[in-house]
Amino acid sequence: MNQNRKRYAQKTGMAPGTLVYTGGYTEQKTGLTRIDYHAGDVVVKKGATVEETFAPLTEGVNTWIHVTGLSDIALIEEVGARFGIHRLLLEDILNVNQQPKVVDQDNSLFVTLKQISFDQASNTLRLEHVCVIIGPGYIISFREKPGDWVDYISERLTSVPRLRTRGTDYLLYLLCDRIVDQYFLVLESFENELDAMEEALLRHPEKFRAERLVLLRKEFSGMRRQVAPLNEEFRKLVGGDISLIQESMRIYMHDVYDHLLQVTHTMENFRETYSSLLDFYVSQNDLRMNQIMKRLTVVATVFMPLGFIAAFYGMNFSHMPELKTAWGYPAVIGVMVVTTIGMLGWLKWGRLRKH
Amino acid sequence: MNQNRKRYAQKTGMAPGTLVYTGGYTEQKTGLTRIDYHAGDVVVKKGATVEETFAPLTEGVNTWIHVTGLSDIALIEEVGARFGIHRLLLEDILNVNQQPKVVDQDNSLFVTLKQISFDQASNTLRLEHVCVIIGPGYIISFREKPGDWVDYISERLTSVPRLRTRGTDYLLYLLCDRIVDQYFLVLESFENELDAMEEALLRHPEKFRAERLVLLRKEFSGMRRQVAPLNEEFRKLVGGDISLIQESMRIYMHDVYDHLLQVTHTMENFRETYSSLLDFYVSQNDLRMNQIMKRLTVVATVFMPLGFIAAFYGMNFSHMPELKTAWGYPAVIGVMVVTTIGMLGWLKWGRLRKH
Amino acid sequence: MNQNRKRYAQKTGMAPGTLVYTGGYTEQKTGLTRIDYHAGDVVVKKGATVEETFAPLTEGVNTWIHVTGLSDIALIEEVGARFGIHRLLLEDILNVNQQPKVVDQDNSLFVTLKQISFDQASNTLRLEHVCVIIGPGYIISFREKPGDWVDYISERLTSVPRLRTRGTDYLLYLLCDRIVDQYFLVLESFENELDAMEEALLRHPEKFRAERLVLLRKEFSGMRRQVAPLNEEFRKLVGGDISLIQESMRIYMHDVYDHLLQVTHTMENFRETYSSLLDFYVSQNDLRMNQIMKRLTVVATVFMPLGFIAAFYGMNFSHMPELKTAWGYPAVIGVMVVTTIGMLGWLKWGRLRKH
Amino acid sequence: MNQNRKRYAQKTGMAPGTLVYTGGYTEQKTGLTRIDYHAGDVVVKKGATVEETFAPLTEGVNTWIHVTGLSDIALIEEVGARFGIHRLLLEDILNVNQQPKVVDQDNSLFVTLKQISFDQASNTLRLEHVCVIIGPGYIISFREKPGDWVDYISERLTSVPRLRTRGTDYLLYLLCDRIVDQYFLVLESFENELDAMEEALLRHPEKFRAERLVLLRKEFSGMRRQVAPLNEEFRKLVGGDISLIQESMRIYMHDVYDHLLQVTHTMENFRETYSSLLDFYVSQNDLRMNQIMKRLTVVATVFMPLGFIAAFYGMNFSHMPELKTAWGYPAVIGVMVVTTIGMLGWLKWGRLRKH
Amino acid sequence: MNQNRKRYAQKTGMAPGTLVYTGGYTEQKTGLTRIDYHAGDVVVKKGATVEETFAPLTEGVNTWIHVTGLSDIALIEEVGARFGIHRLLLEDILNVNQQPKVVDQDNSLFVTLKQISFDQASNTLRLEHVCVIIGPGYIISFREKPGDWVDYISERLTSVPRLRTRGTDYLLYLLCDRIVDQYFLVLESFENELDAMEEALLRHPEKFRAERLVLLRKEFSGMRRQVAPLNEEFRKLVGGDISLIQESMRIYMHDVYDHLLQVTHTMENFRETYSSLLDFYVSQNDLRMNQIMKRLTVVATVFMPLGFIAAFYGMNFSHMPELKTAWGYPAVIGVMVVTTIGMLGWLKWGRLRKH
Repeated sequence: MNQNRKRYAQKTGMAPGTLVYTGGYTEQKTGLTRIDYHAGDVVVKKGATVEETFAPLTEGVNTWIHVTGLSDIALIEEVGARFGIHRLLLEDILNVNQQPKVVDQDNSLFVTLKQISFDQASNTLRLEHVCVIIGPGYIISFREKPGDWVDYISERLTSVPRLRTRGTDYLLYLLCDRIVDQYFLVLESFENELDAMEEALLRHPEKFRAERLVLLRKEFSGMRRQVAPLNEEFRKLVGGDISLIQESMRIYMHDVYDHLLQVTHTMENFRETYSSLLDFYVSQNDLRMNQIMKRLTVVATVFMPLGFIAAFYGMNFSHMPELKTAWGYPAVIGVMVVTTIGMLGWLKWGRLRKH
Repeated sequence: MNQNRKRYAQKTGMAPGTLVYTGGYTEQKTGLTRIDYHAGDVVVKKGATVEETFAPLTEGVNTWIHVTGLSDIALIEEVGARFGIHRLLLEDILNVNQQPKVVDQDNSLFVTLKQISFDQASNTLRLEHVCVIIGPGYIISFREKPGDWVDYISERLTSVPRLRTRGTDYLLYLLCDRIVDQYFLVLESFENELDAMEEALLRHPEKFRAERLVLLRKEFSGMRRQVAPLNEEFRKLVGGDISLIQESMRIYMHDVYDHLLQVTHTMENFRETYSSLLDFYVSQNDLRMNQIMKRLTVVATVFMPLGFIAAFYGMNFSHMPELKTAWGYPAVIGVMVVTTIGMLGWLKWGRLRKH
Repeated sequence: MNQNRKRYAQKTGMAPGTLVYTGGYTEQKTGLTRIDYHAGDVVVKKGATVEETFAPLTEGVNTWIHVTGLSDIALIEEVGARFGIHRLLLEDILNVNQQPKVVDQDNSLFVTLKQISFDQASNTLRLEHVCVIIGPGYIISFREKPGDWVDYISERLTSVPRLRTRGTDYLLYLLCDRIVDQYFLVLESFENELDAMEEALLRHPEKFRAERLVLLRKEFSGMRRQVAPLNEEFRKLVGGDISLIQESMRIYMHDVYDHLLQVTHTMENFRETYSSLLDFYVSQNDLRMNQIMKRLTVVATVFMPLGFIAAFYGMNFSHMPELKTAWGYPAVIGVMVVTTIGMLGWLKWGRLRKH
Repeated sequence: MNQNRKRYAQKTGMAPGTLVYTGGYTEQKTGLTRIDYHAGDVVVKKGATVEETFAPLTEGVNTWIHVTGLSDIALIEEVGARFGIHRLLLEDILNVNQQPKVVDQDNSLFVTLKQISFDQASNTLRLEHVCVIIGPGYIISFREKPGDWVDYISERLTSVPRLRTRGTDYLLYLLCDRIVDQYFLVLESFENELDAMEEALLRHPEKFRAERLVLLRKEFSGMRRQVAPLNEEFRKLVGGDISLIQESMRIYMHDVYDHLLQVTHTMENFRETYSSLLDFYVSQNDLRMNQIMKRLTVVATVFMPLGFIAAFYGMNFSHMPELKTAWGYPAVIGVMVVTTIGMLGWLKWGRLRKH
Repeated sequence: MNQNRKRYAQKTGMAPGTLVYTGGYTEQKTGLTRIDYHAGDVVVKKGATVEETFAPLTEGVNTWIHVTGLSDIALIEEVGARFGIHRLLLEDILNVNQQPKVVDQDNSLFVTLKQISFDQASNTLRLEHVCVIIGPGYIISFREKPGDWVDYISERLTSVPRLRTRGTDYLLYLLCDRIVDQYFLVLESFENELDAMEEALLRHPEKFRAERLVLLRKEFSGMRRQVAPLNEEFRKLVGGDISLIQESMRIYMHDVYDHLLQVTHTMENFRETYSSLLDFYVSQNDLRMNQIMKRLTVVATVFMPLGFIAAFYGMNFSHMPELKTAWGYPAVIGVMVVTTIGMLGWLKWGRLRKH
């Protein structure tokens, strides 16, 4: 995640409106796809050239332009110029630090959010900046890396003809739904991790490493930081004030919103589990400490007096009459036995009395 | 609970609208019941066939269709087709991860919530996914497992004739009331557990196992996760904007809502009790540690100097004049007594001075 | 408190509308009182019969019916029948687990809250379920136990003639005011307890028992659980939408609401004091532990090396030339003195260097 | 503070409307001041008699009546009677436990808040109950103790003629502004205390006494308890719905409100500092404990094995061949050196391996 | 930061309306700059005299007056008099303790906020008080120290002619944008610090100094204290009710507001990281303590019994028959080996049994 968040400085020095890509996938080449569809047909142009991509729109045909890779700033500016996107929104498209938001403008709707996946190997989140703009008859989407969206959408449009009659707002729904579905997979990874930790902690508390919890929590709050504002913003798409979302699509948007709420509640639950585990870990440490100390105390309480008695009769005074007697040795052994019993009794009795 | 929550992955890969049952009771056969009632009569068909169940509704007769077991997806689709249920709602019926919600549509009202019970043996919650749809003259309910609803409802309709004159919204009330009443039983189980733990902790803090608290809290937050959103959603049924809930039923819905509030407040209270117990547990651990260490310190403080003195006179130097004298031995015993008193005094005095 | 909260199970199995008294004062006989008052006169009938109590109301005369003891369910049903109280409200009257609430209906106003007192001997709260219903010209109140209300109200009506011209809403105010005033006494008990604990903790932290704090907090949160929802509900009586509360009584209701706010803020303050004390207690435990360990470390650090040196020269090797010399003994004493100084210096120096 | 808060009991037993002064300054004699001012003149009567004070108001002249000391209940009742103050407000004037509030009535505006100062010697807050009532052409203020208000106000009215043309709402502003300004001084005292503690804690954590933090927090939350509701209530004076506050005074009231917000934010900040310090204190205790224990462990780990070896060769068996040899003594010294190195190595190596 | 916050006392004693500069840059000489621009031209007068600065405004020309350094109170009063700024606002300009706020008045808009930078050397924040007032055709800004604003603004106006056609609200945007951009740099410093600490903590937990965390948190909450209210206030500039902000500038203001939200969320995230680190630090301390104690316990448990056995046979009783036998010495060695194994086994076995 760090590579994504490290570029404040690069950006902040500049005049407003300067376009800089602040993400980490600077090597990613920009790829273009254009899909035109209407009730009768679907035309998919993968790896389209700039000319093909920006060929004029046709009345009655819905057009999806999909841009993968954000390093080609000139191209982004081109898109902005063609579709009349405000310079500040172009900045948002290139700024991977941009928080999720929904901007409803006169003639277009801008949505930005994050594609999130969980890298099992390193136990870290991968965030990918996504922006979608829809206007009358067109939808433009930006992603940092190529994914399976083109295949997924074109497959659906091809195989289910009735979908072709729907507007570009349905495509917006499909993309958002797909992204939010992905969140559940991330949650499942978190859940598996937490479950594994819980089991490890309950079985071998003495071997448990608190780092694991701390690092997971960090990733976890990285995700919450994305979901919380998205939740807030997505409400706008449900509310019904946005002219570009048709009335009949409202229930679909509500479905995505619903899933977002579910994600939020699940995360809330994980947070509780997290602090439960931490509490438990700390209390187990304390408990183990207690047991270690108890053992030490037992050993010291018994053997220190005994050691003293033995040392006492190891003194070399000429006049120690007990040393000369026959009963001295067995007597001192007796004293030692009594002392042992007495000390153990003290430990036991004292504990009983206090609690 | 785990088996219920583990299926994000299975679902998330699919296109929206794909119907999959995500619950754990996949072995449960689907059972159908249909009750038709009007002022004059009640007709109960348990174990009804598909044809009987979906026989046309009669004007002036209220019909309750009850489906138990969600594994037969074709049947659920059938229901959806007959009663014009939106495909997204059908998904919610089959998705046990769906959060409680109330959806008011033009001509029908959809309510989903969880039946919750507490398994004493394993100290875990059992969640069962429940959905209810009411429309004009009909009410359809879905549960994962058969229960006593059919007996309960038919008994009430049979024995109290005036209830037959009420609409299907009264049946909705009866079902919700029954589910929420169940929550109180779960709360009582929690309360008993917490009380038992509290007593155990106050009596034998040294034997108390923190796992019990942690595990209970987990179940507990599993329940809160269901109740909190239900509370929120149920408010809609009270508000009075829903045309399918008659004015005279409002007070009944308010009664259920009231109980939900009570559940919420009681859970809030348990949460406090929980953290009180944890605080206490931790402080008791600390206290015991303190007492163990105090004891160890007393023993070491007294016997280390004594041991040293004894060892000192156990040295084998030829020229140790004290060893030869007659008063050496009693003198060293005197020194030891003084040392003991001195060390004990130091422990006592030092403590007094500091606090 | 436990006996009051333990009856979920008893109630939850039943059909809605079944009347069961869920409180602990099942032995309490039901007592009836009726007071009729108008500008000219006050008629008090303590220990009235059912007939007297339910004699018809007179136009222009205000009537207060006061029921103490809730075990006679038939009588409660009688009241319900006479005054047209909804069955669900009758349930609330008998259900001591019912949360505080205010229900405004067409022709009547229902208020339920708790009379709270603090039992000094056992340091526990005593909750008593109270319900009040007012309608045009009448007010009916229910309490679990007899108290001083009848004397208090009749004394005020008798001695201050102008009060008789006020409606039954003034009686509602008097009763609520009295109950909330009682809350301050409970707060004072809490405060005294907390102050006593604070003093005990500051003077003899080593003798302080954390149980006291934990148990007090439990009672305390039992009270907050009552006050928080009451606060919320009472706002309705202030708002001015309720027709049965006259405009001129609004300022009185506001006064009670004000006191409730004060109770809430005071409780908030106690909560902070509570956690302050707990923090302090924990930090004191740590501190004492530190001091105990420091002492132990000093003793061990000094005497272990000394003991070793003594034991060293207690070895019985034939060839230990030092043992034979005249300077051996004084030399070893010198070494011991130097060692002692060195070890004490190490303790001191090490501490200085680190901090 | 305690003397102020201890009188719940005294008050709660009584009928509503009974006037009792619940504060601690019962010895304070009541003093009266009357200032009449209009554009042309200012007349100040300090130490006025009752007759002078309550002489009729003159049209076109603004009158300020200032009462210091609240023990003379008859006089307060007199004021109430003359200016038509509701009995419940008179109670509030005398009840020092009354929370800050603003009551807007038909023809008058009632404001109550606390004058707060910080007593450096005892590190405790001093709260003084203040009430102000303004009506058309008059303002009446009540304080528990005489202060510098009369001098301050009369000086300003005398020296700045244009202020005399302003209404009594400007006087209300002056008084509130003065009180809230005082809060900043209290904050500064808190800040100085916290800074001193922070420095003490960073320099000599081992000498730091947690009591200081705990006691300061107590005072601190005593202040927050006053400021939080005042903040809420004062908003009413800013809102513009109050007819007695002229439009042009709104900006002044906003200024006071602004300062209150600043006070609130500063307190929030202090609260964080407080818990930062406590966290740090606890972690320092832990750290010191760690270091103490490490030292103890080093000493014991080295000297226990050495002591054992020495004691071993101090045994008196006849057949211990090593004792007779010439190399025995140097050999055992060698063993001891190796043991020492080994044990130190174990401590070091073990630590490295684990972390 | 301290020098900025220490002047409550100085200010609070005074009558309202008294102008005092409460900041720390009292040595800073006041500098004046005036920029006049219209579509055709930009005139920059750096280091302008008072006369030049306050020369009359020209219709159709926008004028920016920039004041650096706030120690010259007479000059501030002069500005106030010329542009009709309310005395209370003049106070705010001079009071560096003033919280961020936005005041919309009839004919002008007042914005105050803080320029924030992070001093790497001392790890402390530097706050600089900034106020901006815009009215029709003019914008006046106040800063405590000279910065690069004049160069930045004049460069932009000179190089981008179309900007000259924009109103003074665009200049307000430029300044706010620049200040908020600076916040990101501060966040980056915080982030670097936190990352460095995290790494230090994960690598060498035993060397980590908690002071660093505590001090950083202090600075951090100092920043949050500025950003939180600014966030709140800035919303007003976005809302659209302010006549001095043109409709077309709304999207720019929203952009700044957006960045502020991002700052807020990032800070929230840091706060979590902070407490994660603290939790981890504490748990690591506990863990290390556990390991230290375990080691001590092992050493003591093994060597105390051994030491006792050795001392036992060092006793000087005449009648200790074992001492004379040939097998005594090897036998005692055997006993010692068995004891060692036994004690180690006890430690191991006991641990296994408990967990």
